[in-house]
Amino acid sequence: MILVTGFEPFGDHTLNPTEGLAKAVDGRRIGAHAVRGIVLPVDHTGIAATLAPLLEEAEPAAVVHLGLAGGRARVALERVALNVMDYEVADNTGWRASGEPCAADGPAAYSATLPLADLLAALTAEGVPAYVSNTAGTYLCNHTLYRTLHAVRARPRPPRVGLVHVPLLPAMVAASGLEQPSMDFPLMLRAVEVILGVLAR
Amino acid sequence: MILVTGFEPFGDHTLNPTEGLAKAVDGRRIGAHAVRGIVLPVDHTGIAATLAPLLEEAEPAAVVHLGLAGGRARVALERVALNVMDYEVADNTGWRASGEPCAADGPAAYSATLPLADLLAALTAEGVPAYVSNTAGTYLCNHTLYRTLHAVRARPRPPRVGLVHVPLLPAMVAASGLEQPSMDFPLMLRAVEVILGVLAR
Amino acid sequence: MILVTGFEPFGDHTLNPTEGLAKAVDGRRIGAHAVRGIVLPVDHTGIAATLAPLLEEAEPAAVVHLGLAGGRARVALERVALNVMDYEVADNTGWRASGEPCAADGPAAYSATLPLADLLAALTAEGVPAYVSNTAGTYLCNHTLYRTLHAVRARPRPPRVGLVHVPLLPAMVAASGLEQPSMDFPLMLRAVEVILGVLAR
Amino acid sequence: MILVTGFEPFGDHTLNPTEGLAKAVDGRRIGAHAVRGIVLPVDHTGIAATLAPLLEEAEPAAVVHLGLAGGRARVALERVALNVMDYEVADNTGWRASGEPCAADGPAAYSATLPLADLLAALTAEGVPAYVSNTAGTYLCNHTLYRTLHAVRARPRPPRVGLVHVPLLPAMVAASGLEQPSMDFPLMLRAVEVILGVLAR
Repeated sequence: MILVTGFEPFGDHTLNPTEGLAKAVDGRRIGAHAVRGIVLPVDHTGIAATLAPLLEEAEPAAVVHLGLAGGRARVALERVALNVMDYEVADNTGWRASGEPCAADGPAAYSATLPLADLLAALTAEGVPAYVSNTAGTYLCNHTLYRTLHAVRARPRPPRVGLVHVPLLPAMVAASGLEQPSMDFPLMLRAVEVILGVLAR
Repeated sequence: MILVTGFEPFGDHTLNPTEGLAKAVDGRRIGAHAVRGIVLPVDHTGIAATLAPLLEEAEPAAVVHLGLAGGRARVALERVALNVMDYEVADNTGWRASGEPCAADGPAAYSATLPLADLLAALTAEGVPAYVSNTAGTYLCNHTLYRTLHAVRARPRPPRVGLVHVPLLPAMVAASGLEQPSMDFPLMLRAVEVILGVLAR
Repeated sequence: MILVTGFEPFGDHTLNPTEGLAKAVDGRRIGAHAVRGIVLPVDHTGIAATLAPLLEEAEPAAVVHLGLAGGRARVALERVALNVMDYEVADNTGWRASGEPCAADGPAAYSATLPLADLLAALTAEGVPAYVSNTAGTYLCNHTLYRTLHAVRARPRPPRVGLVHVPLLPAMVAASGLEQPSMDFPLMLRAVEVILGVLAR
Repeated sequence: MILVTGFEPFGDHTLNPTEGLAKAVDGRRIGAHAVRGIVLPVDHTGIAATLAPLLEEAEPAAVVHLGLAGGRARVALERVALNVMDYEVADNTGWRASGEPCAADGPAAYSATLPLADLLAALTAEGVPAYVSNTAGTYLCNHTLYRTLHAVRARPRPPRVGLVHVPLLPAMVAASGLEQPSMDFPLMLRAVEVILGVLAR
């Protein structure tokens, strides 16, 4: 099974394309793998409560976290998760971290274990703008990647784990009135399908 | 009749989405108006040779020039055309202007005569990122807008004339490897349809 | 005489470097020219009341308007002034234009009459980041350039007139907490001195 | 002793402001600390050969690496060093890494140990645009930070170690002809002095 996660809307956003992306691939079968798509809440306690049983019981072969990154122009394949929570906006419970670690006993960072170079090559070949990003920020996307990698660190056969950031939707930019890049939903979904295709090979 | 123009590829670009947009709406009927879509060459002499007979004989009710603006994130409704040609790259005949006027006897600028505020409101309502731009640059897009407004300036009932810039296509950004905004073709086409719908009201 | 104008602070800004620049060069003598530096209020009626007597009585050989352009990284030599007032923030009297013309009887635009290519070459040779800009926006900087060019349009020997935009000061960016370019005051002043030197040649 | 390092020019750059910064503070005394400023070569073998004896014998109380980051608008206090070398341009020996680790036996990342929040507060109070950055890139600046933190990881009383990125100099941007942010040398030097002042408290 390949686990794909999206997030609920947060901050000023009234929607979050990663919610729709996770739902769109939920229940699909790609190669030998079933795809399970779920939507995470935007607070670190709720994320842990949702993910922990899935990671322990379902034993996914791969975990692809999807997050929204306003301001970015391309699909971002995150290279690393840092052991820090430093929020520019409060989470959906109203809490705002200011430098706390994701795991008090954890290392400074974990590297994502998805095959980033292969994913980038496949996305580029399909005409999807993408790149390998060196920072996933310090909000809940980064936290989720960190905690998943922390949770599976000691397993003999851990799943491949990564985080993919997507740009704002065009309608979000239209509503903002700002000069911000966007990506339309069908192209984002194509990106997720390309990624799942590489992971299922 | 509403005239829609796109451009051939130019500079380092191997394709130009405005070529496909002009072809996609050619032959359509919107309200009481037929739509004529044509593709312009990327040199100012060729543009004049193509446009002059159309503007004189076909007497369009509106002229919508479409141009490609790499680096921009949104559909740009151009407010003004300047009487200057100052090219950063050569045109398709290899000529590179460096400050020449579009019309030696013309004013410093012409204002576009499309209903920009109505177009912006309609695009925003449809979720298409758009804005009113204060500069169309000094390349052939600006030149075309200037020359069309110059050509119809003395007519008792001139057509409404404007220029709309669109971002790069996603595949162009993917190929570039650069952090540049893009817009997918279906959303660009939707933008052109929204614009034509407003003009046909 | 060469007239140099700066502006008072406006909008959210508590200072405006162009105020200090105008004061810094006031009273200097460059070549055969005395320099007069004055500070303009940020509303179009007040600007007219301040500038009209100076332009009529003092008969400057050149007029260099200085304006602040947050977000820009380089000194901008403005090519053109548009006949439109469209403010993103209110002026200092609380009025906010939304598309009104600078002069109801004026043309769509005036071209600046400073020797922009010479100025750019001199600034670049001095190591000052600069460029020729195709838009001065639609706020009071643009308005001032337009009205000055409009005021002198019929003179047999009009002054050379232009507008130079400068970036934010470093301290303004530090206070904002945003990723915005800045330029330090000594370099801005060097830019003004280089410009005055070219005009006095 | 506080060790400050700059770098030689690299890539297309004919100068590197960090070279001048390191030389400018070399030999100063700040509080109880002597400052030693040195210039590093731009290749990872040469960096190791230069730094190793200094770190071992001189036992600095703090190490401040300075690096040049074209495109950034503010002084960047780097939070973390990643265990990866992925160069966009070759180093000064002509070698170009493509994903190799900084230390084959090292962790995914080290956190910088300078007091970043205090440094940011002091810089902001002085009007220097600055921020805490989540990525130091994957070139030799990142490598140097990683290797220094790796070298001192097992010491009972390790020095505080960090990396500070500075923008391009104005003259570098003027020469490039591109819209890129810059910072003038005196302000950069003020930033280094503020940082050293905090470290010496």
